[in-house]
Amino acid sequence: MSKTIGIFGGGQLGRMMAQAALPLNIQCTFYEANRSCPAAALGKVFSSADPELIPFTQSADVFSLEFENTPLADVELLMEHKTIYPPAEALAIAQNRLLEKNLFRVLDIPVAPFLPVDSVDNLRVAVDNLGLPVVLKTATGGYDGKGQFIIRHAEQIEEAWAQLGPAKSLIAESFVNFSREVSIIAVRGQDGDIKIWPLAENHHHEGILSHSIVPAPQSDDLQPVAEEYIARLLTHLDYVGVLTLELFVTADGLYANEMAPRVHNSGHWSIEGAVCSQFENHIRAVAGLPLGSTDLIQPTVMVNVIGQHPDVAAVLALDGAHLHLYDKSEREGRKLGHITLMPKNPAMLTTLCQQLAEILPEPLALTKETQIHI
Amino acid sequence: MSKTIGIFGGGQLGRMMAQAALPLNIQCTFYEANRSCPAAALGKVFSSADPELIPFTQSADVFSLEFENTPLADVELLMEHKTIYPPAEALAIAQNRLLEKNLFRVLDIPVAPFLPVDSVDNLRVAVDNLGLPVVLKTATGGYDGKGQFIIRHAEQIEEAWAQLGPAKSLIAESFVNFSREVSIIAVRGQDGDIKIWPLAENHHHEGILSHSIVPAPQSDDLQPVAEEYIARLLTHLDYVGVLTLELFVTADGLYANEMAPRVHNSGHWSIEGAVCSQFENHIRAVAGLPLGSTDLIQPTVMVNVIGQHPDVAAVLALDGAHLHLYDKSEREGRKLGHITLMPKNPAMLTTLCQQLAEILPEPLALTKETQIHI
Repeated sequence: MSKTIGIFGGGQLGRMMAQAALPLNIQCTFYEANRSCPAAALGKVFSSADPELIPFTQSADVFSLEFENTPLADVELLMEHKTIYPPAEALAIAQNRLLEKNLFRVLDIPVAPFLPVDSVDNLRVAVDNLGLPVVLKTATGGYDGKGQFIIRHAEQIEEAWAQLGPAKSLIAESFVNFSREVSIIAVRGQDGDIKIWPLAENHHHEGILSHSIVPAPQSDDLQPVAEEYIARLLTHLDYVGVLTLELFVTADGLYANEMAPRVHNSGHWSIEGAVCSQFENHIRAVAGLPLGSTDLIQPTVMVNVIGQHPDVAAVLALDGAHLHLYDKSEREGRKLGHITLMPKNPAMLTTLCQQLAEILPEPLALTKETQIHI
Repeated sequence: MSKTIGIFGGGQLGRMMAQAALPLNIQCTFYEANRSCPAAALGKVFSSADPELIPFTQSADVFSLEFENTPLADVELLMEHKTIYPPAEALAIAQNRLLEKNLFRVLDIPVAPFLPVDSVDNLRVAVDNLGLPVVLKTATGGYDGKGQFIIRHAEQIEEAWAQLGPAKSLIAESFVNFSREVSIIAVRGQDGDIKIWPLAENHHHEGILSHSIVPAPQSDDLQPVAEEYIARLLTHLDYVGVLTLELFVTADGLYANEMAPRVHNSGHWSIEGAVCSQFENHIRAVAGLPLGSTDLIQPTVMVNVIGQHPDVAAVLALDGAHLHLYDKSEREGRKLGHITLMPKNPAMLTTLCQQLAEILPEPLALTKETQIHI
């Protein structure tokens, strides 16, 4: 009766996937360097440090991932005998910003002008062509704002190259003048069925997601456009599972920033806030089951717990607060958990966010003055 | 950081408690005869068959239970060094129908007239006093309709005594002429805070719960009365955790049937249907944390999966259906899981229930003609 899904990675995303899988009688196994990872409470961990790749590939019927930098070589070895969703092609593209931006362009999804860079000389050419400011990024690796340099003055070109040049493959992008960042998350089933959650508006602090507001305020016109873009990606890639697309809201409309071939921090609100969460729908898709409704139940704000644990009792005393801790030890900048605020009266979201700003040791972009206009 | 709660029992109730505890960084351990019980996926199981009571009592900071027939001797041994919620007194009363009905009477909670019975002679006296029909029950043990006999004719007295007499302590009750059965579930925190979920209307088939409708139809007048009754019980018992009170709806108002000192099958809807579920609030209470809101999110019907597993894909294809399987093998009359129906439009509940009646191998009291009037 019960089925097993093997997951590359065993962090909080794997933990929440396994939590969603359990009521469907689906077990998970994990491939992860740290045996006492957040997902360890819910399934067997095969060490990627040892490595135990072969026994991991034998531990499940079908596979997925929670970590977009899963080595392609590991995935290809797995695919000799087993199936993995999402497809390896989607993973390869998401691991390389040049391939990713090219795909966006091919599918008529607007992106900021960009040029590949592999020397300080063609970085100068790129800056000339794109005009300052230019964002220089490594084509592979990098997350949460790491692995990028914003060149505001021509004199910074040498410094930017010195810092990122060793990565060899770089991408120079025009700086997008955006008013806010939103993300669209969708899921595609093995039968091609697509379901899409409402847009989230994401607020960052020093490159780390602080909180997401769902639905993104004033997004009625943006939602159908974002849906069209992500549906193109899903169909083109013959994708199965959850895909996330980060977008900038500009005066000229939506610009794609990047995609993540997995469940996403800006979708954690869906555990309580949607009929079926991103985690359950990802599991359903990978297991070949029908997808659940992505309808919003109530407006919600998801707030990350970063670096230090809060006073749990103070958090739970807030009306409609749901706490999700990941069983991780404290460390600066580390995601330790998240809180979903879903008060019966959405007008209370502003008050609750302000109260949370007082409770959280590291409230990031949340302050006593935060206003939520849904 | 993380805390451990030890739970007597390791069935589906323990499983769902542990699922609710995990996001709060609270682990669970279990004391259960079968090491591969439904809760085993979520925490260490100490065998009550071996028995491993001492190591179990050392495995956690605070204790609770999912099984109202937990032996009092085990609980008393535990209490020499540790704390258990709910209190042992509540457990002792819930294990004995005579103590239970006496408590209801003391607290002015209406009950059917009853008399203790310990011989065939005073069974005859009881029948004379109460008038036929009389329901004869064992004072201890018995669940899901087992351990009782309905005496409709005086000639059945000998047969009833022959069947139940060996239990020694019996209770004879007047037959309550009720239109329906409802249950009220409430939680009390260590600070005395009480929160109460909406009434559920429960439908049985041969003594097994088939489905619950929440909120119970036409219960606006009943809700405050039921709340008053359960609050009296919680306060009198200095109770901590979730308590369930089953009630009959009669022409004369509500009559108490029995109480369960634990989370209850008729409260499973609260995982999706309430802001905070009975499982999470029980864990919060036992851990000394503030209680969450028991507000209803949307009307819902919870349907039990009995005896045989359904076609999972067919269930998940229903709009707003949430499936919870308990990882149990099939056996006649066994609770294998439950399905919570929570369509965006509550008017769809009737259609969904009728569709489920076609999908479930054992739909019990659910039929193609079922009508849900919320």
